[in-house]
Amino acid sequence: MTDTMKQWTLKDVGRANLGLVSAAVPAPAEHEILVKVSAVSLNYRDLLLIEDGLGFAAKADPFVLGSDAAGVVVAAGAAVTRFKPGERVISTFIPGWIDGPGFGTAREPNYRTLGGAMQGVLSEYIVLDQGWAVKAPESLNDVEASTLPCAGLTAWTALVERGRLHAGQTVVVQGTGGVALFGLQIAAAHGADVIVVSGDDDKLERAKALGARHGINRKKEDWVEAVYRLTGDRGADHILEIVGGAHLGRALQAAAVFGRVSLIGVFEGFDISGHFAPLALKHLTVEGIQVGHRKALEDFVRAIDQTGIKPVVDAEYAFADLPAALDHLARGPFGKIVMNMPG
Amino acid sequence: MTDTMKQWTLKDVGRANLGLVSAAVPAPAEHEILVKVSAVSLNYRDLLLIEDGLGFAAKADPFVLGSDAAGVVVAAGAAVTRFKPGERVISTFIPGWIDGPGFGTAREPNYRTLGGAMQGVLSEYIVLDQGWAVKAPESLNDVEASTLPCAGLTAWTALVERGRLHAGQTVVVQGTGGVALFGLQIAAAHGADVIVVSGDDDKLERAKALGARHGINRKKEDWVEAVYRLTGDRGADHILEIVGGAHLGRALQAAAVFGRVSLIGVFEGFDISGHFAPLALKHLTVEGIQVGHRKALEDFVRAIDQTGIKPVVDAEYAFADLPAALDHLARGPFGKIVMNMPG
Amino acid sequence: MTDTMKQWTLKDVGRANLGLVSAAVPAPAEHEILVKVSAVSLNYRDLLLIEDGLGFAAKADPFVLGSDAAGVVVAAGAAVTRFKPGERVISTFIPGWIDGPGFGTAREPNYRTLGGAMQGVLSEYIVLDQGWAVKAPESLNDVEASTLPCAGLTAWTALVERGRLHAGQTVVVQGTGGVALFGLQIAAAHGADVIVVSGDDDKLERAKALGARHGINRKKEDWVEAVYRLTGDRGADHILEIVGGAHLGRALQAAAVFGRVSLIGVFEGFDISGHFAPLALKHLTVEGIQVGHRKALEDFVRAIDQTGIKPVVDAEYAFADLPAALDHLARGPFGKIVMNMPG
Amino acid sequence: MTDTMKQWTLKDVGRANLGLVSAAVPAPAEHEILVKVSAVSLNYRDLLLIEDGLGFAAKADPFVLGSDAAGVVVAAGAAVTRFKPGERVISTFIPGWIDGPGFGTAREPNYRTLGGAMQGVLSEYIVLDQGWAVKAPESLNDVEASTLPCAGLTAWTALVERGRLHAGQTVVVQGTGGVALFGLQIAAAHGADVIVVSGDDDKLERAKALGARHGINRKKEDWVEAVYRLTGDRGADHILEIVGGAHLGRALQAAAVFGRVSLIGVFEGFDISGHFAPLALKHLTVEGIQVGHRKALEDFVRAIDQTGIKPVVDAEYAFADLPAALDHLARGPFGKIVMNMPG
Repeated sequence: MTDTMKQWTLKDVGRANLGLVSAAVPAPAEHEILVKVSAVSLNYRDLLLIEDGLGFAAKADPFVLGSDAAGVVVAAGAAVTRFKPGERVISTFIPGWIDGPGFGTAREPNYRTLGGAMQGVLSEYIVLDQGWAVKAPESLNDVEASTLPCAGLTAWTALVERGRLHAGQTVVVQGTGGVALFGLQIAAAHGADVIVVSGDDDKLERAKALGARHGINRKKEDWVEAVYRLTGDRGADHILEIVGGAHLGRALQAAAVFGRVSLIGVFEGFDISGHFAPLALKHLTVEGIQVGHRKALEDFVRAIDQTGIKPVVDAEYAFADLPAALDHLARGPFGKIVMNMPG
Repeated sequence: MTDTMKQWTLKDVGRANLGLVSAAVPAPAEHEILVKVSAVSLNYRDLLLIEDGLGFAAKADPFVLGSDAAGVVVAAGAAVTRFKPGERVISTFIPGWIDGPGFGTAREPNYRTLGGAMQGVLSEYIVLDQGWAVKAPESLNDVEASTLPCAGLTAWTALVERGRLHAGQTVVVQGTGGVALFGLQIAAAHGADVIVVSGDDDKLERAKALGARHGINRKKEDWVEAVYRLTGDRGADHILEIVGGAHLGRALQAAAVFGRVSLIGVFEGFDISGHFAPLALKHLTVEGIQVGHRKALEDFVRAIDQTGIKPVVDAEYAFADLPAALDHLARGPFGKIVMNMPG
Repeated sequence: MTDTMKQWTLKDVGRANLGLVSAAVPAPAEHEILVKVSAVSLNYRDLLLIEDGLGFAAKADPFVLGSDAAGVVVAAGAAVTRFKPGERVISTFIPGWIDGPGFGTAREPNYRTLGGAMQGVLSEYIVLDQGWAVKAPESLNDVEASTLPCAGLTAWTALVERGRLHAGQTVVVQGTGGVALFGLQIAAAHGADVIVVSGDDDKLERAKALGARHGINRKKEDWVEAVYRLTGDRGADHILEIVGGAHLGRALQAAAVFGRVSLIGVFEGFDISGHFAPLALKHLTVEGIQVGHRKALEDFVRAIDQTGIKPVVDAEYAFADLPAALDHLARGPFGKIVMNMPG
Repeated sequence: MTDTMKQWTLKDVGRANLGLVSAAVPAPAEHEILVKVSAVSLNYRDLLLIEDGLGFAAKADPFVLGSDAAGVVVAAGAAVTRFKPGERVISTFIPGWIDGPGFGTAREPNYRTLGGAMQGVLSEYIVLDQGWAVKAPESLNDVEASTLPCAGLTAWTALVERGRLHAGQTVVVQGTGGVALFGLQIAAAHGADVIVVSGDDDKLERAKALGARHGINRKKEDWVEAVYRLTGDRGADHILEIVGGAHLGRALQAAAVFGRVSLIGVFEGFDISGHFAPLALKHLTVEGIQVGHRKALEDFVRAIDQTGIKPVVDAEYAFADLPAALDHLARGPFGKIVMNMPG
């Protein structure tokens, strides 16, 4: 094993401050594992962080990017019991959140995530507390497995861990990004009726091939009316709301009685709004989703192996090609973008 | 028993169209009970309906006002099994909602409530399907019992039926109206820490006498900061959000990690809004509450008898004095306003 | 439509008292529908009732057998709103249980079921209160649809309505009778890992073809040890316990931490028993299942249409051949036995 | 601070092998705290372990007894963030169970508890991983606080964490031991109707003074019939079943429709049994309870401070008087027995 390695860092806000730099391979402390990273999945949040800072950029120097890694354990501290060298692992997005309500206070919610308030994983080697990793699913390769910790778990938390989805329910997913396609696949694997809303007929066709029963082109028709039509006015039991802003109001209209709207994304703005009447008259639940805890990730890994779900990877990029990968991310991929680490 | 009776009707939108009119005492059909009404509790909704219509006024002629009645069964149809003459009953706000998710579709949520889309109860006698009534609690008189079907059940549904409140949790109630004070009393009866937010020190003192541990005068300090101070930054586990509009955003700030905001009222507007970050980072649940089902009302009646909670009735008015009662309602009562029916 | 019809009745305990008799076609009352029955599914309970009485036989004269019917509405009372003539329906096993906890008291649990304390459906025509029926799934024919009200709903209630099953969990079903095979299919449709326990290799093969991942021949190996082996000692998250008696104790051993054992059947005795240690140390939940409510049946019908599950009908018998059908039932069918009614 | 201390150890099964011995005061490792113990609460399990071994005795040498300690942090390792010297803490019964389902497999359930498979706390000083302790409630002294980790949390887990108890429900507790009286107090603090079953009128009177509404002397009347009488046949929503053996069957009879029986104790035997019919027909849930997780203990501590519940301590014994305390334990205390540690 070499002593030095490469990692992608951000010195300050803005793409010009990205750097592929050398660093010493870290040594695991007593409770830590050293992981040779084989794949890192990117999220839209990485782009926002690079271009807007989100309050985190340049707080550490060097600040390493990236939150979702898959790799193999190559060394372990003396007190490590959860893993052995040679085992394949994936990282957890919110380190230390094992189960239950999680960290933080009303005044200061938890912001501590990998590649955000904490150092990231876009590095040839990383050390993780043994509690911050989960065994990778046997049915996925590392590129696929790297997409689970953030995008995959977010959809799982919304639909299963909190949503208690079951067969026969109707699920609406907005768009065809990473969380949306995981939502589609998870819902279909539970026997649900999946409706995908997108502005692109080609993407709708590809979504149907993944298990969606219906596609709505929101540029061609009012998507809420289309949900009414497709469900005989019954509406959607679960909606993955990824648009943000005033779009929440539309989701409230599309929801079935006792339905659930999972707030996940905010492409159109952080100030969300909607009308009170459908919320109250239909007894709706609106839930904010921030990825999820380790117990849910372990459940999800088992579900992946059992159902055979294969994450949708739109493109893989070589480790050196982060700028191209970010361009792709900005264009809106169909599913996930993954960085392949050097062999 | 007399053949004719009096009832309050509304011919068209506006107080000028109120009328205390005579009508024939109705006869119960096979599955119905005839109830001699002894008390009717008013809600702010009655005022809105009279002054704005809410889409319901003048749809029936005559349209009888009022949704929440207590009284005694005086006759029963041949197929009635739930009640016998002589038993004291209260009405249900959403007739026929027995348990579970309830009526309506995504497109057309359920609007069918007494004194709204359906005929009301501000009448000396009413007929109700036997499934639309519940036994009155033994520990309350009829004036008190009449406050349960809407205001009381709304608070119960939010905190207990859906909120699964338990001892040691912190509950924030906004204001000192009917739902807020029921929320206070129900929370205190479950061993919760209750914080009341009001703009009136006198009302805060009266709220403390009812079991609130803390009062915040929102005119003297920022109520969210005060919640942080009172809870050591932990925040509130449950918030009864009765203000509406952009006030939801403040509730999201005050909520604890995994907290729950029950949307109940909209004094400041039907277009609710708030910021995404606290919702997601604190994994909050926002639920729309529309009163509740009969099963929950039966549970609540048992709880009333067991805990000794006495609903707070700010004032009783004689049947003929509806205009004065509405004036009181418009001023904002401390608890409930109840109409006493003729003996 | 003819005025008379045939129905299977039981005059007293014992097969000798079975009779295929003529009766007048009933007329629906105001809230009732008249259903022309096309298929009736049999349950082991029907056999017990004929041979042992179960306390019900001969309480009515004539007492009509059978609890699970599929058919078409041919007439409706004036107050019927849920159905129209021409619609296909299935019956509900516990009439009037719409949702929630259901009927009865601690002292007197609910025994009122069709073909038990109430009249049955093994008749060319039946009348049902409109609230006692549910629309048949579009994806099933009447023979298949008739198997849902008891066997199908029992498995659905155990695994979904109460069990909140999700993908990646392990489900063990005992045997290959009607409830067991529905459990297998429902679990597989939710992405669960299904293990079937049987004493017959041929039946295990057929179960695998239906979606079970593993089969355990309990005559060839200890089934609890086999569950440990197949799950890497993790155990089963859900167990459909259909054997009864001391077999509960084995299920407790096979259950995973926080697992759930649904008590459904009692082939080996009504006195159930087991050891306290696994129950407590693994925080297990044991639940008694009595079929389920109408809301769950409606959810299940939607799931049937969405997932394409086809109930397993081992054999169909002509209406006149009830004795042969009962013989088959006594031998232990693979799935369900259904009576075809005259065209 | 002294270098040596005293602790109660067990060399082998049997009281003759108890020893009050000297040992070195331990030093906390990086993640550990050193606690000066001020009180240790005894459980019936301690007596069983001394007299029967339970498989644990003499596995360690010396083996220190006791599972439930209250004390003050006197030193902390460098990595400790949860506590500071000077803070009052209580121990957790199942170390490391933070939240969620907990440890172990189907084959090997978790046995690792303090004073059992792990070293105990009946010692002047103990070291605990920082994650194994919880802040003591401010409203209790150390003697009272020491009763929470096992007896108190067991009742809380059964009724609140898993039972979602609410006002108006009926709770039956068996006996007047530690768990039973906590159950009584927790239930009363949530507005529930509490029935205590005991063979001793004097204890029943004392239980009523603590908040039980009803007492049943099981030597004078059939307790199940008495529950029917007191609830108008409705039955009990929650039953804390502490007797074990065939007594479960009686609890099933006493339970209300959809009721819950928490299996906690086994005074009359580990082989539990009952009849299938009430379990199924009343849709009952039977749950095995093994104390609970740290998150629930933290919730319970908050509830203690908010409700003012004072644990019932039947007697305090000086540290040297363990044999007398064990004699008291064997006689069946009213509430808890606590060892006072040297000042």
